[in-house]
Amino acid sequence: MRELHRLRDAIAAPRPEDGAAAQRHLDQLTKPPGSLGRLEELARRLVEIRGGRAPAVDCPVIFTFAADHGVVQEGVSAYPQAVTAQMVENFLRGGAGVNVLARQARARVVVADFGVVTPLPARPGLVSRWVGNGTKNIAREAAMTRAQAVGAIEAGVALAEDAIAGGADLLGLGEMGIGNTTAASAVTAVITGARVEDVTGRGTGIDDATWRRKVDAVRRALEINRPDPDDGVDVLARVGGFEIGGLAGVALAGAAHRLPVVLDGFVATAGGLIASVIAPAARHYLLASHRSVEPGHAVALGHLGLAPYLDLGMRLGEGTGAAVFIHLARAAAHIYTEMATFKSAGVDGPRA
Amino acid sequence: MRELHRLRDAIAAPRPEDGAAAQRHLDQLTKPPGSLGRLEELARRLVEIRGGRAPAVDCPVIFTFAADHGVVQEGVSAYPQAVTAQMVENFLRGGAGVNVLARQARARVVVADFGVVTPLPARPGLVSRWVGNGTKNIAREAAMTRAQAVGAIEAGVALAEDAIAGGADLLGLGEMGIGNTTAASAVTAVITGARVEDVTGRGTGIDDATWRRKVDAVRRALEINRPDPDDGVDVLARVGGFEIGGLAGVALAGAAHRLPVVLDGFVATAGGLIASVIAPAARHYLLASHRSVEPGHAVALGHLGLAPYLDLGMRLGEGTGAAVFIHLARAAAHIYTEMATFKSAGVDGPRA
Repeated sequence: MRELHRLRDAIAAPRPEDGAAAQRHLDQLTKPPGSLGRLEELARRLVEIRGGRAPAVDCPVIFTFAADHGVVQEGVSAYPQAVTAQMVENFLRGGAGVNVLARQARARVVVADFGVVTPLPARPGLVSRWVGNGTKNIAREAAMTRAQAVGAIEAGVALAEDAIAGGADLLGLGEMGIGNTTAASAVTAVITGARVEDVTGRGTGIDDATWRRKVDAVRRALEINRPDPDDGVDVLARVGGFEIGGLAGVALAGAAHRLPVVLDGFVATAGGLIASVIAPAARHYLLASHRSVEPGHAVALGHLGLAPYLDLGMRLGEGTGAAVFIHLARAAAHIYTEMATFKSAGVDGPRA
Repeated sequence: MRELHRLRDAIAAPRPEDGAAAQRHLDQLTKPPGSLGRLEELARRLVEIRGGRAPAVDCPVIFTFAADHGVVQEGVSAYPQAVTAQMVENFLRGGAGVNVLARQARARVVVADFGVVTPLPARPGLVSRWVGNGTKNIAREAAMTRAQAVGAIEAGVALAEDAIAGGADLLGLGEMGIGNTTAASAVTAVITGARVEDVTGRGTGIDDATWRRKVDAVRRALEINRPDPDDGVDVLARVGGFEIGGLAGVALAGAAHRLPVVLDGFVATAGGLIASVIAPAARHYLLASHRSVEPGHAVALGHLGLAPYLDLGMRLGEGTGAAVFIHLARAAAHIYTEMATFKSAGVDGPRA
């Protein structure tokens, strides 16, 4: 917990004057003011996040954390639990969606086992931050102990700080875990106050009967566990997941180090929600890469005050939306640093 | 005209079986079916466009065509006409938005003068396809002769075919021309049948009084010129622009050569509309990179049956939206060609 207190104390809101200075620079570039729309808004936010420094996205890192979820016992997923470990193997061989999209974006992917049930032998490229043998079934009991919750968050913090020490300048959140949209629905319902049926979706693609079981499982998880919405660690411990805790830790570390933290889909955003309960100023460092088709995602982003940049009907997770977004962040950075000004290019401004 | 007839005869709709085969491949990749949303739809479209070949975006080229517009005499723009030539200079020095975004996307920008009023001395990097000394004022007479309209289109075809011969595998449309959103509004109103006030926007950022003048100028352009909506060359000649004609030519050449043609904003899409009147099957080769804030853009895209991939509040033109879209096209291509299949990765599919 000492680690979490240190981070929370280090996280402060960006200074508005940095954003205002960025806007003055953007308005001098050879384009009608505001005509690059959200790319300009993103450039301004990147400058604010970095404390006034010119934006750069030279060394993005995506954290793809994997763990299993006891709630699969309730029959809430279309896929068997073995797929979590199989997909980790796929990540390590570079064949998954996040690998392909991260390669294109020149982003490193940190693949970490936060609690996969199927044993994953140690090997190069696999980071073990095993917190437990999957969570307990949240429809019946707490997902994990409070000590495990703190451990998961602190493991995420440590991995992020390693990457930051190595030069990372943008942190993307990604995840894999059969059953983890059920945990994300529970976390989102608790923290946003939304109704369970409004934040529970089809995950990997379930039918109506499975969806009703999933809604019922989330309802029971909230009734039995009664998480405290003002205590992010409690929410994580009672209805979250190990990988969600790890991602909350990455978000806190990014905010403390004044780096952009890029949310992915619904599950990664649940990690962002937990981080924002632990340290409310952390939300200023979060960027919403895209809007997932999971209905709870828009609810969570709205609660965080974030508008997504992409809306491509994606619902894969893994960090795939964060990877695609890196191109937009780079575009914003390049506009800010490379475009000519009206003065330097000898271009007339609008008529007075 | 012989050239246009040759192209029109060469343009055929893609074969649906190529798209179906692409979908079968996409459904075998290690992700829940459809979970990459519009990136999958885009991959399928790229395969269809290429006649069944695996998609690749190795050599994208953006055509940024510039010309002036006599309708600026009506006081429809916030910027003086001299800015068209000044921005061409900016393109040639690499300082404009499209340069910055194209560099990031590893796209070549072809900058061509189709009829800029301020003389532009010849120099490396500037392609001269000068059709006339700016168009006439469409609020009073036809923009250009029919021969000039054909010449502009054929010049665009020739530039596109040069690029294709050099290996171009994606053609992006971009433009610069003070006053050209007024021409685009007229073209869009004629071809889509929409009301003038619904397809006339703020361009570079005009005030209410200027907007009313602009609407009035477009209305008079349609009344005086009475373009034939079933004759794309006539629409171009009466109310279009030289650069819009050139972009229509690029679109026709791309469709004839079975390459993806990426629209940019409102003005570039007016070129796409003209191409689709000349050769209706050309629309199958058009991709809508983004939705501009110009209100007529959504009307034009709807008429073409296209849904934009990005919605970033952009309204700069030049090809900037097309440049940003290249990253999405590459993402779609990489997903299609690089992701592991369930079988190759040993990942279980959904439970039966």
